[in-house]
Amino acid sequence: MGLLAVGYREPVVPFLVPFVVTLAVGLSLERFERGDPGPREAFLLVASAWLAVALVGTLPFVLAGNGTLADPVNALFESMSGITTTGATVIDDFAVHGRAVLMWRQVLQWLGGLGILVLAVGLLSELSMSGAQLMETETRTQDVTKLTPRIEGTARLLGGLYVGLTALMVFVLLALRAAGVAPEMDLYNAVAHALTTVATAGFSPEAESVGAFSPVVQWVVVAFMFVGATNFVVLYHLSRGDTTRLRDSEEFRVYLGVVLGAVVVVGTMLFLDGEYPLGEELLRATVFQVTSIVTTTGYATVDFDLWSAGPRHVLFLGMFVGGMAGSTTCSIKTLRWLVVGKTFRRDLFTAVHPQAIRPVRLSGRAIDEGTVRDVYTYTLVSVVIFGLLTVFVVVDAARAGVEVTEFGAMGAAASTFLNIGPAFGFAGPYGSYEPFPDSTKLVMVAMMWVGRIEIFPVLTLLTRSFWRS
Amino acid sequence: MGLLAVGYREPVVPFLVPFVVTLAVGLSLERFERGDPGPREAFLLVASAWLAVALVGTLPFVLAGNGTLADPVNALFESMSGITTTGATVIDDFAVHGRAVLMWRQVLQWLGGLGILVLAVGLLSELSMSGAQLMETETRTQDVTKLTPRIEGTARLLGGLYVGLTALMVFVLLALRAAGVAPEMDLYNAVAHALTTVATAGFSPEAESVGAFSPVVQWVVVAFMFVGATNFVVLYHLSRGDTTRLRDSEEFRVYLGVVLGAVVVVGTMLFLDGEYPLGEELLRATVFQVTSIVTTTGYATVDFDLWSAGPRHVLFLGMFVGGMAGSTTCSIKTLRWLVVGKTFRRDLFTAVHPQAIRPVRLSGRAIDEGTVRDVYTYTLVSVVIFGLLTVFVVVDAARAGVEVTEFGAMGAAASTFLNIGPAFGFAGPYGSYEPFPDSTKLVMVAMMWVGRIEIFPVLTLLTRSFWRS
Ligand SMILES: [K+]
Ligand SMILES: [K+]
Repeated sequence: MGLLAVGYREPVVPFLVPFVVTLAVGLSLERFERGDPGPREAFLLVASAWLAVALVGTLPFVLAGNGTLADPVNALFESMSGITTTGATVIDDFAVHGRAVLMWRQVLQWLGGLGILVLAVGLLSELSMSGAQLMETETRTQDVTKLTPRIEGTARLLGGLYVGLTALMVFVLLALRAAGVAPEMDLYNAVAHALTTVATAGFSPEAESVGAFSPVVQWVVVAFMFVGATNFVVLYHLSRGDTTRLRDSEEFRVYLGVVLGAVVVVGTMLFLDGEYPLGEELLRATVFQVTSIVTTTGYATVDFDLWSAGPRHVLFLGMFVGGMAGSTTCSIKTLRWLVVGKTFRRDLFTAVHPQAIRPVRLSGRAIDEGTVRDVYTYTLVSVVIFGLLTVFVVVDAARAGVEVTEFGAMGAAASTFLNIGPAFGFAGPYGSYEPFPDSTKLVMVAMMWVGRIEIFPVLTLLTRSFWRS
Repeated sequence: MGLLAVGYREPVVPFLVPFVVTLAVGLSLERFERGDPGPREAFLLVASAWLAVALVGTLPFVLAGNGTLADPVNALFESMSGITTTGATVIDDFAVHGRAVLMWRQVLQWLGGLGILVLAVGLLSELSMSGAQLMETETRTQDVTKLTPRIEGTARLLGGLYVGLTALMVFVLLALRAAGVAPEMDLYNAVAHALTTVATAGFSPEAESVGAFSPVVQWVVVAFMFVGATNFVVLYHLSRGDTTRLRDSEEFRVYLGVVLGAVVVVGTMLFLDGEYPLGEELLRATVFQVTSIVTTTGYATVDFDLWSAGPRHVLFLGMFVGGMAGSTTCSIKTLRWLVVGKTFRRDLFTAVHPQAIRPVRLSGRAIDEGTVRDVYTYTLVSVVIFGLLTVFVVVDAARAGVEVTEFGAMGAAASTFLNIGPAFGFAGPYGSYEPFPDSTKLVMVAMMWVGRIEIFPVLTLLTRSFWRS
């Protein structure tokens, strides 16, 4: 970033301080992993690492001092939105910001995506928290672990895959440019978008997001968003030519089914609305927006906030789904919904046949009932937090005299807490969260943080028993 | 009803047919209880009984043929809203309907409330469905059962209490009239409102609902709404002078706390809005509306839809709470939220201390983990159904060209599925559900039915395993 600033003849200092601090946090994480942390230490580390990087990430925005990002609350919002891979922005004018500042946002998101991969596989799945151990059932991480005897080994493999996918995307985008089908795609943009696509993060240095690029680029982005929200253990095996994990994964089928189902519904609605004629443009607009929302990336190629109530509400519902566990995706994740659905079907059965004993099975293996309960808890708590946040956003905006529609508030609450990015109304895909009052923004900052690290690491810090020895 | 129609010189026939059918359903229920039904029979009976009465209850409205109720879809909506004690109305002009027709709505609700009491205690709690057995833990129904050896005995005791409370309320209202402080409260109105208050049902033959009566009447209604949403086993012991059950009940404390907390918040907001000066009117308007919503009654004394975003949203959140299990209340109920809250606290503790084993305790007794999971399932499924219904209401209205705000749709979805009654916008407390398209109304009819009998009895009917022997 410093080099980039030098290259673009922009101020260098803003990027030196955070880089040093980020490096320090990274190193302490590294060191920590070598020990054998209890849940208490793990939660504290995870919660404070994300918060620390968010605070530090604020500096370049404030020090650069341009546009809306010069305001400390806005800068904190943008930084937390970055490191949590949310992608909600408070920038209202992209032209006033230097290329280095805009790239800093992309880097934050890429680091956030990497952090989640390491965290999900390396720490949280070990602690069997909130259904994260399901990922193991589903993908048999232990087979990977056998390859590499320690947790860090697995985390490093998946981290390597993440780096590799990012590099691959840069290469593909530049190849398209070389082939003459992506004239707008220079090296800067190729790197910037590669950093935030596999991370399912969604910041873009372009005001028009991925809409600034040619159709073929948009299709490539769709592919990498989809991959970014696919379980990385499955991807790892695929990369070694082993397709059995993919074929065995019930979760993958649900993930794919949700995307395809939403595409059919949204596409039909848009066609009936006369939004697009039958053709590639209709298909691309639908597939892009649906994939972007369901994978929790948050890019846009069109202003979907201008669509009618039907497609907008399907996208809204899609926000709650998310991609596969064990990826960079956010939100509730298809794995949890799969367990919720299967358990509910089982419960309907046992309601009628109380004597029957029927474990819930995932990819053929029975899941422990405690895990099922954890999944229900996580899902219910998420939905309740979303509801309370919506009401807060509405009431706080009314108090401050900011006009927010109910649907705008619902979208903004879901989009920040579930780490998607764009919402509806003034915080739509081509809009900005800047008009929200500072109090709302600060609560959203907290909720992005709580949501990205899966609620428990933060909420346990609020209990008395956490701090008693 | 027939006699009333004769008395008021209105057509008699509309009321004869449904009365005979209702009686027949009642008798078959009675006979059924003497047997030892399995869950399959119980679900089928409960689901079909509510549906049959709703269909039959439609007849007087259609046959009377006045106003909006002459339309079959509207009539079905009103009838289902009656028997499910919802209280959502499609009447837009009360003056065109005869007194007999208006009383028929009240009677339907009173029967619905009685049905739920008998059902909750007599059938569902025996089947240990969806956390209903918690009620036993909390109130030790078995002590009552000891007094009366069979289920019907308990059901009859509580039914008797219900009848007694209704009669008491008629008496109190007429006494107030005799004392000269309730001039508008004639015998007709006293009976009509007593029938729908203890039932926490909320229909009123007055267009202004309870706002048509003097302040002292409004306070009396508050008291009976509150009692109607209190566990009837606790009430039974209270009626015998035993206050220990009340004092031991953790759920009662939560129920009271929710009402008082909401009163403080709403009252403060209304005062700051300058809606009322500090005084009895502010207190009464707040206490009445909060109690009406939290107990799921749905009466109003003022048009709370005209309040600002803050108090309206607090009322909206209050819709999801509901009163105590084992009463006539609808919605999710405080008992379930209490279990959800306690379990979540426990989960935060065990997240930090994975080795600790800590059962969730209710009034000192440990609850079985399967029950905890049932409670989570029920709560999550309710919230998900509410969300999907909201989206359906918005999209269906847009399709039909009916203008519905997002908040209006949220309110109407919650208010019908959770059986409250009034919502916001044109379906507000002094409004009507009539403008919704027929397709929306029919879906709402189904959801009132699903919600009132606690989801499972209907949803199990949709599974294949239900119909296989
Ligand atoms: K995102
Ligand atoms: K009601």
